[in-house]
Amino acid sequence: MLLKSAIASVLLFSSFAFAEIKMDTIEYKEGSTTLEGVLVYNDQMRGGPGVLVVHDWMGISEDTKQKAKELAELGYVAFLADIYGKGVRAKDAKEAGELAGKYKGDRPLFRKRVLAGLETMKKQARVNKNKIAAQGYCFGGTAVLELALSGAKLQGVASFHGGLDFPSLEKDAKKITSKVLVLHGAIDPWVPVDQVNAFTKALDNAKTDYQFVSYSGAVHAFTNPGAGNDITKGAAYNEVASKRSFQALKAFYEEVLN
Amino acid sequence: MLLKSAIASVLLFSSFAFAEIKMDTIEYKEGSTTLEGVLVYNDQMRGGPGVLVVHDWMGISEDTKQKAKELAELGYVAFLADIYGKGVRAKDAKEAGELAGKYKGDRPLFRKRVLAGLETMKKQARVNKNKIAAQGYCFGGTAVLELALSGAKLQGVASFHGGLDFPSLEKDAKKITSKVLVLHGAIDPWVPVDQVNAFTKALDNAKTDYQFVSYSGAVHAFTNPGAGNDITKGAAYNEVASKRSFQALKAFYEEVLN
Repeated sequence: MLLKSAIASVLLFSSFAFAEIKMDTIEYKEGSTTLEGVLVYNDQMRGGPGVLVVHDWMGISEDTKQKAKELAELGYVAFLADIYGKGVRAKDAKEAGELAGKYKGDRPLFRKRVLAGLETMKKQARVNKNKIAAQGYCFGGTAVLELALSGAKLQGVASFHGGLDFPSLEKDAKKITSKVLVLHGAIDPWVPVDQVNAFTKALDNAKTDYQFVSYSGAVHAFTNPGAGNDITKGAAYNEVASKRSFQALKAFYEEVLN
Repeated sequence: MLLKSAIASVLLFSSFAFAEIKMDTIEYKEGSTTLEGVLVYNDQMRGGPGVLVVHDWMGISEDTKQKAKELAELGYVAFLADIYGKGVRAKDAKEAGELAGKYKGDRPLFRKRVLAGLETMKKQARVNKNKIAAQGYCFGGTAVLELALSGAKLQGVASFHGGLDFPSLEKDAKKITSKVLVLHGAIDPWVPVDQVNAFTKALDNAKTDYQFVSYSGAVHAFTNPGAGNDITKGAAYNEVASKRSFQALKAFYEEVLN
């Protein structure tokens, strides 16, 4: 009897600690363009709230897959959106800048691509369509904020070190229905204080429900271990800020997705 | 056997759910002035990390006692510092403004009063002297940030809707050893954006470890249910921001006091 329950405990513990996280590649379309996203989920759960994850300027990477895995371990069904198109991934910063620049320079197209990811995620049987959020990193942070500015109906968007420069900010802030969490590196040279102030002012005027968190010592890309540690480059990993921002994200989803 | 363990469970649950929170009045001195603080703790615990709680401009109130109680329920030993002196409490906003103004106008005295509270707390047998934080509300937020700026050795300070105007900010930011959490109302008319930017810039320059969180729609006093709901007055309760800031505080203490 004792042994039996010990075995049961071990099994229970195992299934929790070593939950199998699965990743399914999903092809979808935006207009005539084929995109290739990844659905990331805990195979031992029926489903859960859906979180759209938007990649940084490199495209879907090992780092964004890792972020999605962490969400799946918490019980969320994550969908890695693809903004660039099937097979289109940056091989270096130069290409990344060109790719990201294309979408930052064409916001209607940018929004269409993010929305296509959102709609594809909502069609997945595992996803609870009434509990939806989106989060993104750098370029992807800007992407999910564009999604919110488009008036898309979702419970929350979270930007990690995203750019906060939006061409139709004042006008579109009024359309936001989602709660907004911005996780920002306090000394991010790519997102200067004037941009921050203009962003929060527009959201204040629109009475958007938001939280804006600044982490000291953190620059662009602070959640990305691949970004190195040299803050003079303007982009660098910051373990403390990364952990704190993940705690803030968890609290946010506990509020908006439960 | 089953009954016995059922009883044990009930007792365990009871002791957890109805932990007796005690409040002991403690007289202490700063110079020749007698101050009257309150030690707030869970009587069923031996002790724990200490959290100094500094009142708003009214002096120690039912609201600040309630805040201390919430900390005690989490296992912290809270000490309500008294800045004004035994029996000195504001009866209205006019008196509160005069009392707070006295200390805001005499920062050396202000710091002495906060430090006296800190030292008194550290002498309490229940308090783990190696795990100390301080938090405050409005005037008290300013107080705990002055404490950090004085170079006091503690693990964390947290300001709720505190004023961020410090006469010796640039110079003293370098003395800060404590981690800093600032919980700010995004549209607080008493703490305007220029003051926020000057504050964070000084902390950036000093390489202080801080987190700065802004809550949309929140003005001064947003954690105080007694402040009413009229944001046009500049001070008002905001239940959502109050709850979110308490979650942020809990995460902060889990990091710095554990």
